[in-house]
Amino acid sequence: MSDAYRELERRFARMAALGEAGGMLNWDAQVMMPSGGAEARSEQLAALDVTAHEMLTDPRVGELLDTAEQHANALDGWQQANLAEMRRQWRHATAVPSALVEALTRATKQCEMVWREAKPDSDFARVKPYLGEVLRLVREEAAAKGEALGLSPYDALLDQFEPGMRAERVTQIFDDLAGFLPHFLDDVLRHQAAGPAPEPPQGPFPQAKQEALAARLMRTMGLETAHSRLDTSSHPFTGGAPDDIRITTRWDERDFTTGAMAVIHETGHALYERGLPGDWRRQPVGEARGMALHESQALLAEMQVSRGEHFLRHAAPVMREALGGSGPAWEADNLHRLATRVAPGYIRVDADEVTYPAHVILRYRLETALISGDMPLDELPGAWNAGMQDLLGITPPEDRLGCLQDIHWFDGGWGYFPTYTLGAIAAAQLYRAACTAEPGIPSYLERGDVSPLLTWLREHVHGLGSSLSTDEILRRATGRGLDVEAFKGHLRERYLAP
Amino acid sequence: MSDAYRELERRFARMAALGEAGGMLNWDAQVMMPSGGAEARSEQLAALDVTAHEMLTDPRVGELLDTAEQHANALDGWQQANLAEMRRQWRHATAVPSALVEALTRATKQCEMVWREAKPDSDFARVKPYLGEVLRLVREEAAAKGEALGLSPYDALLDQFEPGMRAERVTQIFDDLAGFLPHFLDDVLRHQAAGPAPEPPQGPFPQAKQEALAARLMRTMGLETAHSRLDTSSHPFTGGAPDDIRITTRWDERDFTTGAMAVIHETGHALYERGLPGDWRRQPVGEARGMALHESQALLAEMQVSRGEHFLRHAAPVMREALGGSGPAWEADNLHRLATRVAPGYIRVDADEVTYPAHVILRYRLETALISGDMPLDELPGAWNAGMQDLLGITPPEDRLGCLQDIHWFDGGWGYFPTYTLGAIAAAQLYRAACTAEPGIPSYLERGDVSPLLTWLREHVHGLGSSLSTDEILRRATGRGLDVEAFKGHLRERYLAP
Repeated sequence: MSDAYRELERRFARMAALGEAGGMLNWDAQVMMPSGGAEARSEQLAALDVTAHEMLTDPRVGELLDTAEQHANALDGWQQANLAEMRRQWRHATAVPSALVEALTRATKQCEMVWREAKPDSDFARVKPYLGEVLRLVREEAAAKGEALGLSPYDALLDQFEPGMRAERVTQIFDDLAGFLPHFLDDVLRHQAAGPAPEPPQGPFPQAKQEALAARLMRTMGLETAHSRLDTSSHPFTGGAPDDIRITTRWDERDFTTGAMAVIHETGHALYERGLPGDWRRQPVGEARGMALHESQALLAEMQVSRGEHFLRHAAPVMREALGGSGPAWEADNLHRLATRVAPGYIRVDADEVTYPAHVILRYRLETALISGDMPLDELPGAWNAGMQDLLGITPPEDRLGCLQDIHWFDGGWGYFPTYTLGAIAAAQLYRAACTAEPGIPSYLERGDVSPLLTWLREHVHGLGSSLSTDEILRRATGRGLDVEAFKGHLRERYLAP
Repeated sequence: MSDAYRELERRFARMAALGEAGGMLNWDAQVMMPSGGAEARSEQLAALDVTAHEMLTDPRVGELLDTAEQHANALDGWQQANLAEMRRQWRHATAVPSALVEALTRATKQCEMVWREAKPDSDFARVKPYLGEVLRLVREEAAAKGEALGLSPYDALLDQFEPGMRAERVTQIFDDLAGFLPHFLDDVLRHQAAGPAPEPPQGPFPQAKQEALAARLMRTMGLETAHSRLDTSSHPFTGGAPDDIRITTRWDERDFTTGAMAVIHETGHALYERGLPGDWRRQPVGEARGMALHESQALLAEMQVSRGEHFLRHAAPVMREALGGSGPAWEADNLHRLATRVAPGYIRVDADEVTYPAHVILRYRLETALISGDMPLDELPGAWNAGMQDLLGITPPEDRLGCLQDIHWFDGGWGYFPTYTLGAIAAAQLYRAACTAEPGIPSYLERGDVSPLLTWLREHVHGLGSSLSTDEILRRATGRGLDVEAFKGHLRERYLAP
């Protein structure tokens, strides 16, 4: 092992520790911080960001990478993968001039603020100039990164969230799904209408009882008390660090399923972080592979496991007891029908498993057109509504239910949307492979025992960190790279079962 | 304003922001963090410390200080004071070689761990070798800092916590007090025995009600909800940042006064931080002047205000209502007798206002002797017990009630103890001066209105930050530098009143 490599490990460990500190402060800002702390918090987070960015773009890091790569044959496989990930992070960081980074930070901060005001009024015109400025700067960033990485501008953005994924592949997968979904949705709605309608359990469900239930479900899913917390925030998220996971959710006293399902979804994210290779903490190769795989773990927990008939046989009586319910609404079959109810709607985050991909495909098509310059920003609201009509057969009556609904673009998160559906595909694929390898998994889930599934995931996904590409992880675990057929098969099986 | 000075402001602002981040993570570790997060948290805090230390000891900072000092006449008074504080911080940081800093970090961490095990068993012999190593390294540190600062070794340690304070002055003040206290204590105990004994209100007092009461008292003392939180931890402390204060305490369901008084004490610390000059946030001159003045603000809130007869006339019915009490135990006069009860004891943190200085004087005499080498470590337990007998007339039966009780020495905090009593002196002095300037203060306190007192403190103490020395702040505010007579006068007035 060369001194250069060792020195790189030391430097990246410190950057990662500063990153973890920032993660904690972000969690605190959304869960604990009094409102008057916001300005100081911005300063703290900016200092952490800038410091870590300066450490990564320090010219000495480039020299160390060159030297370490010259002596890479002295490194073992994980070290080589670590070095490659260091280079990847370095390429992304050094590609963009710091003046552009600063301009983006300022522009997105302002745009997000205006968006928060414009959204409730469905006032696209108000936020358009700010979004235009963000888009202009993101296109500059995409061009700069594309040049440095040898990628198209959009691919360079995508690569930030899902390393190795390219638009060509996404387009192919999404076109396939876009051809499949409308007819499939018709079939599902017809099939659903022919069966009994689900009966929602009647609340109110006091928050304290929901919290106790959610905490219990987190434990059942395999997340340890010594390494996690559950708190309340305005949007569910998973923060913190792999050994100190912070899950948050919101609670609806009329509908306990929102909070419970959100916690299980976040627990899926958390289990991925917990299962990352402990020997590589705070090293690039020890980090999660990418956002598609991250989302796959959340959706595996939520969609494949907790909305599935097997796990619900265990969970239904647990839920009923925790919330003091009684009657047929609490039976597993009814809760399963409720958890798999399909209904096209305007809002992505409220969408069911079948219509969710349509929301993502729409955003993907629009953001690629905006980044390439094929579509002017003026046309966004109209194109959004036309796309919704095409894909789901509904037209949003106002922009707050349309192109103003998600924070991503206004906040600079371009190239992120596809990972939601790539994750859903990987989740179906991985769950099927796990059940093939360990056919007892469904019956263990019926008894509330996730350990055989979790053990399989730790071995085949979590424990690999970033040592392999997403496709290679999937290929070794399931026999194929990312495979849309597994997802379609899952949907057919769940939603058109006789 | 020179470019060098401007660049220094920029650098110190970033260091301070990283310091605030560390403060938040320390709070989180003691209040929120699941136990399994401890190791990652150490890494995060170490990364923040080392990064900020490297920024401060960067040779470029020395050059910038030289240049800025050459052009200091172009700076206004606050900027000049800021520059002087930058130089002071730089001198402390650069005085100690980084190998010694690391050795100290390791040694204190290990010593503190062993101390936690040895203390319950009163096993001084077990921790002695670790404490010996800490002492050896602290003496090295003191010598190095002393040489760089032109101070004696102990003065160099003291200067870290209370800039400008010297052992010669402390010894003079403490000898004066040590001559005064034993006789005074006899008088107080006689006087107290002649009056009615206080009657403690009978619990249990549920934690939730105590929390609501403490939160209300925080607000009454002038701490804003938008800039503060109150939480639970194993030891009370004030953390966070000036605009985002985190107060913690512990609760005793049999005795609500412990928690309530601790919260008011911490609120005094918090109000100092809140009142620091907002224009100088994250600059050295904008920080609290030193630990003596910091403690003075806590003791002013706790000892001068909240244990005083005036404020208790307001607080007694508030406490009674909040906790659902009734009867003569809840009358202001009884609560005042309870809050000013004097009884010599072994434990410093449980000590009353009259005997507390004896605990501090003892520690000061012992730590100066250990740092100078006049006393070998072997003699510490015996010397401790002899000192307790001399000063308070009692001998601890075991070392957990003696020299093992406080974390400070085991954790490397040498030179800190004197600030507790220097703070008590300054508190008495400042409260008297405030009441002289604004004679209505006591009657405002009777109505639960602290604003005239707080306004005076903001103008004469908080708002000055580190722009003047502690002595100069006191001289301008009270007409004299640190003045033990004001403290003795306060004690006589409160404890020997007819």
